[in-house]
Amino acid sequence: MLNKQIDSFLGLGTEYNTAKVVLFGAPFDGTTSYRPGTRFGSNAIRRESYGIESYSPYQDRDAADYPFFDSGDIDLTIGDTERVLAQIEERTATILKDNKIPFMLGGEHLVTLGSMRAIAKKYPDVHIVHFDAHADLREDYLGNTLSHATVLRRCYDIIGKGKIYQFGIRSGTKEEFQFAKEHTHIFPFDLESVAKEVEALKDKPVYFTLDLDVLDPSIFPGTGTPEAGGVTFEKLREACYIVTKNCNIIGLDVNELSPPYDTSGISTVLACKIVRELLITVLSKEEK
Amino acid sequence: MLNKQIDSFLGLGTEYNTAKVVLFGAPFDGTTSYRPGTRFGSNAIRRESYGIESYSPYQDRDAADYPFFDSGDIDLTIGDTERVLAQIEERTATILKDNKIPFMLGGEHLVTLGSMRAIAKKYPDVHIVHFDAHADLREDYLGNTLSHATVLRRCYDIIGKGKIYQFGIRSGTKEEFQFAKEHTHIFPFDLESVAKEVEALKDKPVYFTLDLDVLDPSIFPGTGTPEAGGVTFEKLREACYIVTKNCNIIGLDVNELSPPYDTSGISTVLACKIVRELLITVLSKEEK
Amino acid sequence: MLNKQIDSFLGLGTEYNTAKVVLFGAPFDGTTSYRPGTRFGSNAIRRESYGIESYSPYQDRDAADYPFFDSGDIDLTIGDTERVLAQIEERTATILKDNKIPFMLGGEHLVTLGSMRAIAKKYPDVHIVHFDAHADLREDYLGNTLSHATVLRRCYDIIGKGKIYQFGIRSGTKEEFQFAKEHTHIFPFDLESVAKEVEALKDKPVYFTLDLDVLDPSIFPGTGTPEAGGVTFEKLREACYIVTKNCNIIGLDVNELSPPYDTSGISTVLACKIVRELLITVLSKEEK
Amino acid sequence: MLNKQIDSFLGLGTEYNTAKVVLFGAPFDGTTSYRPGTRFGSNAIRRESYGIESYSPYQDRDAADYPFFDSGDIDLTIGDTERVLAQIEERTATILKDNKIPFMLGGEHLVTLGSMRAIAKKYPDVHIVHFDAHADLREDYLGNTLSHATVLRRCYDIIGKGKIYQFGIRSGTKEEFQFAKEHTHIFPFDLESVAKEVEALKDKPVYFTLDLDVLDPSIFPGTGTPEAGGVTFEKLREACYIVTKNCNIIGLDVNELSPPYDTSGISTVLACKIVRELLITVLSKEEK
Amino acid sequence: MLNKQIDSFLGLGTEYNTAKVVLFGAPFDGTTSYRPGTRFGSNAIRRESYGIESYSPYQDRDAADYPFFDSGDIDLTIGDTERVLAQIEERTATILKDNKIPFMLGGEHLVTLGSMRAIAKKYPDVHIVHFDAHADLREDYLGNTLSHATVLRRCYDIIGKGKIYQFGIRSGTKEEFQFAKEHTHIFPFDLESVAKEVEALKDKPVYFTLDLDVLDPSIFPGTGTPEAGGVTFEKLREACYIVTKNCNIIGLDVNELSPPYDTSGISTVLACKIVRELLITVLSKEEK
Amino acid sequence: MLNKQIDSFLGLGTEYNTAKVVLFGAPFDGTTSYRPGTRFGSNAIRRESYGIESYSPYQDRDAADYPFFDSGDIDLTIGDTERVLAQIEERTATILKDNKIPFMLGGEHLVTLGSMRAIAKKYPDVHIVHFDAHADLREDYLGNTLSHATVLRRCYDIIGKGKIYQFGIRSGTKEEFQFAKEHTHIFPFDLESVAKEVEALKDKPVYFTLDLDVLDPSIFPGTGTPEAGGVTFEKLREACYIVTKNCNIIGLDVNELSPPYDTSGISTVLACKIVRELLITVLSKEEK
Repeated sequence: MLNKQIDSFLGLGTEYNTAKVVLFGAPFDGTTSYRPGTRFGSNAIRRESYGIESYSPYQDRDAADYPFFDSGDIDLTIGDTERVLAQIEERTATILKDNKIPFMLGGEHLVTLGSMRAIAKKYPDVHIVHFDAHADLREDYLGNTLSHATVLRRCYDIIGKGKIYQFGIRSGTKEEFQFAKEHTHIFPFDLESVAKEVEALKDKPVYFTLDLDVLDPSIFPGTGTPEAGGVTFEKLREACYIVTKNCNIIGLDVNELSPPYDTSGISTVLACKIVRELLITVLSKEEK
Repeated sequence: MLNKQIDSFLGLGTEYNTAKVVLFGAPFDGTTSYRPGTRFGSNAIRRESYGIESYSPYQDRDAADYPFFDSGDIDLTIGDTERVLAQIEERTATILKDNKIPFMLGGEHLVTLGSMRAIAKKYPDVHIVHFDAHADLREDYLGNTLSHATVLRRCYDIIGKGKIYQFGIRSGTKEEFQFAKEHTHIFPFDLESVAKEVEALKDKPVYFTLDLDVLDPSIFPGTGTPEAGGVTFEKLREACYIVTKNCNIIGLDVNELSPPYDTSGISTVLACKIVRELLITVLSKEEK
Repeated sequence: MLNKQIDSFLGLGTEYNTAKVVLFGAPFDGTTSYRPGTRFGSNAIRRESYGIESYSPYQDRDAADYPFFDSGDIDLTIGDTERVLAQIEERTATILKDNKIPFMLGGEHLVTLGSMRAIAKKYPDVHIVHFDAHADLREDYLGNTLSHATVLRRCYDIIGKGKIYQFGIRSGTKEEFQFAKEHTHIFPFDLESVAKEVEALKDKPVYFTLDLDVLDPSIFPGTGTPEAGGVTFEKLREACYIVTKNCNIIGLDVNELSPPYDTSGISTVLACKIVRELLITVLSKEEK
Repeated sequence: MLNKQIDSFLGLGTEYNTAKVVLFGAPFDGTTSYRPGTRFGSNAIRRESYGIESYSPYQDRDAADYPFFDSGDIDLTIGDTERVLAQIEERTATILKDNKIPFMLGGEHLVTLGSMRAIAKKYPDVHIVHFDAHADLREDYLGNTLSHATVLRRCYDIIGKGKIYQFGIRSGTKEEFQFAKEHTHIFPFDLESVAKEVEALKDKPVYFTLDLDVLDPSIFPGTGTPEAGGVTFEKLREACYIVTKNCNIIGLDVNELSPPYDTSGISTVLACKIVRELLITVLSKEEK
Repeated sequence: MLNKQIDSFLGLGTEYNTAKVVLFGAPFDGTTSYRPGTRFGSNAIRRESYGIESYSPYQDRDAADYPFFDSGDIDLTIGDTERVLAQIEERTATILKDNKIPFMLGGEHLVTLGSMRAIAKKYPDVHIVHFDAHADLREDYLGNTLSHATVLRRCYDIIGKGKIYQFGIRSGTKEEFQFAKEHTHIFPFDLESVAKEVEALKDKPVYFTLDLDVLDPSIFPGTGTPEAGGVTFEKLREACYIVTKNCNIIGLDVNELSPPYDTSGISTVLACKIVRELLITVLSKEEK
Repeated sequence: MLNKQIDSFLGLGTEYNTAKVVLFGAPFDGTTSYRPGTRFGSNAIRRESYGIESYSPYQDRDAADYPFFDSGDIDLTIGDTERVLAQIEERTATILKDNKIPFMLGGEHLVTLGSMRAIAKKYPDVHIVHFDAHADLREDYLGNTLSHATVLRRCYDIIGKGKIYQFGIRSGTKEEFQFAKEHTHIFPFDLESVAKEVEALKDKPVYFTLDLDVLDPSIFPGTGTPEAGGVTFEKLREACYIVTKNCNIIGLDVNELSPPYDTSGISTVLACKIVRELLITVLSKEEK
C-alpha cells in the first residue's frame, strides 16, 4: 500500500507532541502597498528547502537530529486584515499553551503583530529584537493603522517604551527616525552592537523578528521593498546566531520573502538556509 | 519654459469639464486569493497605451476626436477593503453627479461593487451586462463576503433578481451555477445570444462590467485566475461593440489585468485596445 | 493539537484502500534533448490545482464526490534511465495489483514506457490511444534507444503492430511518418476521427497517453518542444471526454508540462483542468 | 584532429557556390520606437532551429535535400541607419549578382528597405506581397522618414503605385489606411483573397516580406508591437505556401521576431518552422 | 472636480520658475551594440520612485524640502543619432539659460555628449568627473564615431586634455587604457582617490556623469553591459556625496539603467535612491 | 563570395594545429537533481563572449594574441550517463595526445569525471585544485554513484588520498565533511591559503576544476544549487590567477553555469570573463 506524501520544512520533523519548536506559515500580504507576493513566501521556503542540506557546517549540527514540527500554512481570510491577525494570534497561542516555541514564516511584516498579541499575553515583559531595512514605526500608512509600515509601532503600543531593539534600519520618514530615537533602541548593523545589546537582554524573554530585507538586495532581491545598502549573508547569519544563542527566545519569525520577484530563486534558498540555522541554534540550546 | 509631463490614456483627453466619459483607475487586489497583481493593471494600461494607435480601423474613428478625461488612479487605502469600496463609490458618485459616464479600470473584480453602489443610487433600475470566465456568485469566499469571487452576488443583493446578464462563465461551484439558473440570466458566449439579450435591454440603464479573463488565456495570460476555453479577441471585440452600441451605458469597467503575469506584455496591449474600442463606441454615440 | 498539512491534487482524495484511481507523479526529464524542466510538471500540477474549482461545469460533476488517491511523486534515481523506468513500472504494478487504475503525471514522455511495461503484463491485449504533436517513433535518438523521441516505438516493441492510435502528430522525421503508416494508426486531430476509432476500440483494454504538446503552443507554451499548429483546449477537452467515456481505460498518463517555460502559468492551470476532467470521466464511469 | 563548429539554420546547408537560396541575418532594431530586441531575431532563429525537424510533413519534403546556404548575420554599424541600409543592400546585391535568391532574417521591418533597394535595381518591375499587422505607410514617424513604421511607404517611393499587396493589416493611422486605399492593394487576411491576388501576380517578379506580427499575439508574443486580432499559424502557413508556390519569388524576408519578449520561446520556434516551410517551397520549385 | 494626475520624480517638485535643479529624461539607446533597453530607464526611475522615501537618513534631509522640477522625457527622434543629440543639447541649453542645473536621466551613455555640447558653450573650462566600468574612449566603435563606447572621447574632443577624471574603469581595449594614461586622469575606485582629486577641482565648474554600471552587477544587474568586479552601493553613495558636496556642479547625469534586464527591480530602485541622494546634496548646497 | 560564419569564444582562435589550449563544451546536466539547465552553459559562454573585451586590464594582455582553439560542444548522448562520460573522456584524450591543454566548459560538475579519466591515464600523479560551494564527496546520491554530488569522490577513487585540494566548500552532509578531513585537503576560501597550498603543488601536474557556485549567489545567480555565503568575483579572479600562474596546469574546466536561472545575464558574462582570464594566464605562461 502507498502512503500519502508529506511536505514539511526539509522534509523533516517529529510529531507535534514531542516538538520543541513549531513552524507555521502566515501567507498574508494584504497591506503591502507596493509589490505584493510575500503571501507565497512560507510555501516557497517549505518547497525549496528540499534543495539544501539539513546539516549546518557552521554549527556542525544537523536539523534532522532535533525535534521540530512544521504545522503548515494557516488558512487565512484574505481581504480582512483584522481577522487574519486574529487567526495568527490563535495559532501562536495554541503553540504557546503547549509550551512550545512558535516560529512563524511570513508573509509581510504585519503578521508579527498577530503573533505578538499572543506572545505579550503569556510574556508581559517580552522584548523584541528587530532586524530590518525599514523602521516600520509609522503611526499610520495611507490611512491605515494596521500595515507592514506600522507593525513595530503597533508592537510598541502593546509592550511599551524601551523594549524594542532595532538593527539595520536604513529607510523611513523623518518622524520614524525621531520616534526611534525617543522610544526604541536603534543601532547600525554591526556584530559588536548586536553582541553588546544581546548581553543586556540576557534575563528577558525575547521575541526575534527578522525582516529579510535587512539583507542587501543583491543577495536578497526577492522582496517587496528592496533597499540598497544592506548587510551580507555572512553578517546576518552571525548576528542571528548571536541573538538566538544568547537570548531567551520565546518566539520568532522570518518574513518579507516575495518569491515572484525572486526570479533566479536565490532569495528563497537563502531564506531556507537562515531558517535552518535559526532552528538548529534554538533547538540545540533546548537540548541542554 | 518647460511644461510638466502629463500621463493619460493614449496621451489624450480634454478638460474634465467638457468630457463625456471619465476614466479612473482602482488599483486594488486585496481579496485576490491566488495570484495578486491586478493593482498594477490600470497604470499599465495607461502607460502601455502609448504603443497603440488612437485610430480604430474597426470603427473608422479616432479616439483623439472625442471628449474623455483620464482622472488617474485613486489613492486607495490598501489593506482596508470597506474603505477602498467607499473610496471607489465616492469617485464614481462625483462623476455621475457631473453627468458624465464613469469608466473604471481595475484592479480585481471586487472594485465593481464600489462603483455599483454609486450607480444604483442614481439608477435604481440599473441592469448589468457581465462578461467573465467565473460566475462570481458565491455567498462568501474563504470566510469573506467581500471578495472578487462574490462580487456579482453582492451586486445582486443591491439590484435584485433577473437584472444580471452573464456571458462566458466557465468556472464556478455547483452552487453558483444553481444560483445563476434561478436568479440571473446566464449564457454561453456567442454573438447571437449577446445581440438578442442586448435587444431586450434597450430601454434600461446598463452597467457593463468586463472581466478580461473571459478571454482565452492564450491571448490574455496576464490575469490572476486564467481559465482555459475562453473567447477570442475578435469575438470579445464584437460583443463589446454590440453591447456598448445598443445599450444605454451609464457606467462601465474593465478589470482583472495582472501585469506581473503578463510576461510578454500582450495582455496589457490587448486591454489598451479594448479600452480604446469601448471609449470610441460609447463616445461616438454621445456625439449624436 | 495541530495536524500536518497534506498536499494532494485539488486538496482532495480518499484513503488508498477505497480509491478507484491512483494518481502518481514521475518527475523525470533525463532524456530531454532540448529544454529540460518536465521533472517539475507533476508537482506543479498538484500545487496549482488549488487555484481551480473541483466542480466541472462541462460534466456537471464534482471531483470531490469520487474516490481517488494522490500517492505523490516517486523518488526517482535521476541520471539512471533504466532504473527510473523500473521504479515507474513498480509503482504502476502495485496499483494494478490492487485493482485500481494508475494515472501517471509526467515528466517527459519516456515515463510512459515504465508504465506500459507493467500494463502489458496485466493486459497483454492493451491498445494505446496517443495524443501528441510528435510521432515519438524513432528507433533511436542521438544514439539512445530510450528517449522521449522513441517512446512509442518502444511501446510498439512490446504490444505489436496495429495497436497504437495516434492523433495530432505534426512533427517527425520522414522515417517516422513512414513507420506510422505501416505499423500504427495515425490520424489528424478531429473529433470525428477520434469518435470513430474509439468506437472500434470498445472491447479492448485501452491505455491513454496524453502528451500535452498536442495543444497549440499559444495555449500551452510550457513544454519542451512547442510545435505550432496544434489543437485548441476545447477540442482537446472534448476528445479526452470521448476517449475516456467510451473506452475501457485501464491506465492513463498526462505528460510534458515543463513549468520553467510556463512563465505566465497558463499551461500548468490548463493541465490541472484536463487532469480534473479526465479524473471525473474515468471515475464517474466506475461509479455505475 | 577536431573541426571548428559551424552554426547554420537547421545545422544544414551546401557550399555557397551550389546554393540556390542564400540566408542572411540583418540584426537591426535602430528605429524601433517602442520595445527593442529584434536585433536578436536572426540569431535566435538560427540557434533554436536545432530544436525542430528538417522534414516538413506538410510538404512531405526535407530541407536537408535542398541547396541553401546560411551566410550568417551582417556586422551592421548600429546607430547609423543609412549605413545599415547600405550594408544590407550590398549583401543583397552580392547574392543577386550570383543569381541566387536572397532570404533575409530581420531585425525590424526597416531592413526590408535595404534589400528592396538592391532588388529594384535588378528587377525594376518587382511587386511586393506584404503580410503584416501594421500598414507601415507613414510618410514619417516621430520625425524620421526611415522607420519600421514608414518602410512600405519608402518601398512605394521606389517601385510606385499599385505594386504592393498588403494582407492582414489591422493597425495604422487614418492617413495610412487612406493612402493604402489609393496607392496599394489592401486585403483582409483570408486564403481566398491571397490565392486570387497571387494569380494576378503570376508573371511578375515578386518580393515577399513577412512581418511576423501578422500572427495573433497569442501564438507570436515575441514581437515589439503585438496587435490582437491576428491570424493563426495554420492560416499563415497556408498563405505562405500559396504565395511562394505560385509567385516568381526573387527575394524574401521574415522579420520582427523579438526574442527578449518571447519568454517561453514559442515565437522563435514558430519562426524557425515558417522559415523551414518557405525554404522548402522556394527551393523545391527551383528543383524542377 | 477632479485634477489630472501628475507623474514626477518622487511625486514631488515645485514650479519650473522657482526650481534650482531641473530633471529630464533622455530615453535613447540607439547605439547600444549589445543589449538595448536603457531607453526605458528614465521613465522607470520616475515611476518606481514612488516606492522609496523622500527622506534621506544618510543626509538627514528630505527631498520634499527642496526646489526641483521634473520636466519629463524628451520626445526623441529614435533612429537618427545626430538629431537626438541636438534635441538633448537644446533641452540642456534651455535649462542653463534659465540659470538652473540640468540633471539628465539616461538612456545610454552617449546622451552625455548632447548635454556636454550645451554645457561647454556656457562653461568653456568645464571638467568632467566620470564614474564608469568602461573607459568609453574609443575613437570609433563598429564604424561609428557616435557611440556609447566613444562618448568620453567625444567629450575629450570638446573640452581637451587633462580635464576628465575617470573612476572605476575595469574594461576597455588596450588602446583606450593607453589613451587614458596620456590624456585623462584615471583612478581605481577608492574614496581616498575621489576625495583627493575632488579637492583639486574645487575652483572648476564640474559636470558629473555617472554610468551606473560602475556598480557591481550583483547589486545593479539591470544594465546593458554588466561588468563583474564593481563597487558596492555604499561606496558609490559616499563617492557621489563627496563629488557633489565639494565640487561646483553645473550639470549632471545618471545613465545606463536598462529595466528589461532588471528582472527583480532592484536596479531601478537603487537608481531612484542615488538620484534622490544626488538631488538632495546638490540642492542643499544651493540652499546656503 | 560569402564565407560561413564561425562561432567561437570571443570570436577568436587559431587553427587547431597551432593551438596550445583547446576549449570544448560538455553540455550535460543529466544527474542534476534539483534545477537543470547547465547543459546550456558552454553555448551561452561562447555566445555572450561577444559582449566582453578580449583585452584584460588585470593582466594587461589580450586573448587575441594567444593560440587557442574552440572546438565547440560535443554531441553528447543525453540520457545515458556512462556514454556521456566516455564521450568526454575521448575528446579530452584526443587533445592530450596532441600535447595541448584541454579546457572544458560544462555542463554540470559530473563532466569533470570524464575529463579526469583521460587526464589520469596520461598524468598518473595528477593533483586536483577544486573551487566549489559543495564538497561533492558523497559515495552515492539518490541511489546513483555517478552524480554531480559524487564527482570529487569518484575522482578520489581514481587518483587517491591527499591529492585533492578543496577551497570554498560551505555545504555538504556531515559524512562528506568527515571524509574531507581524512582524505582530501579542505580550506576556507582565502587568498593566503590558496597561495600557500599552490606553493606545495609546484612540481605536480595539476588539474583545476572550477565550480562557479563557489561564488556568492548575488553575483552568480545562474546556477542550479545557489549557496549563500560565497566569494566575491575579485577574490575568485585573484585565486584563479594564483592557481593558474603558479601551478603546472595540464587541464582545467569551468562548470555549473545554468543560463535559464540567469535571468539578467550577469552570471554568463561573469563566466566569460573568468574563462578569458584563465585562458590568458595559462597561455601567457606557455609563451615563455
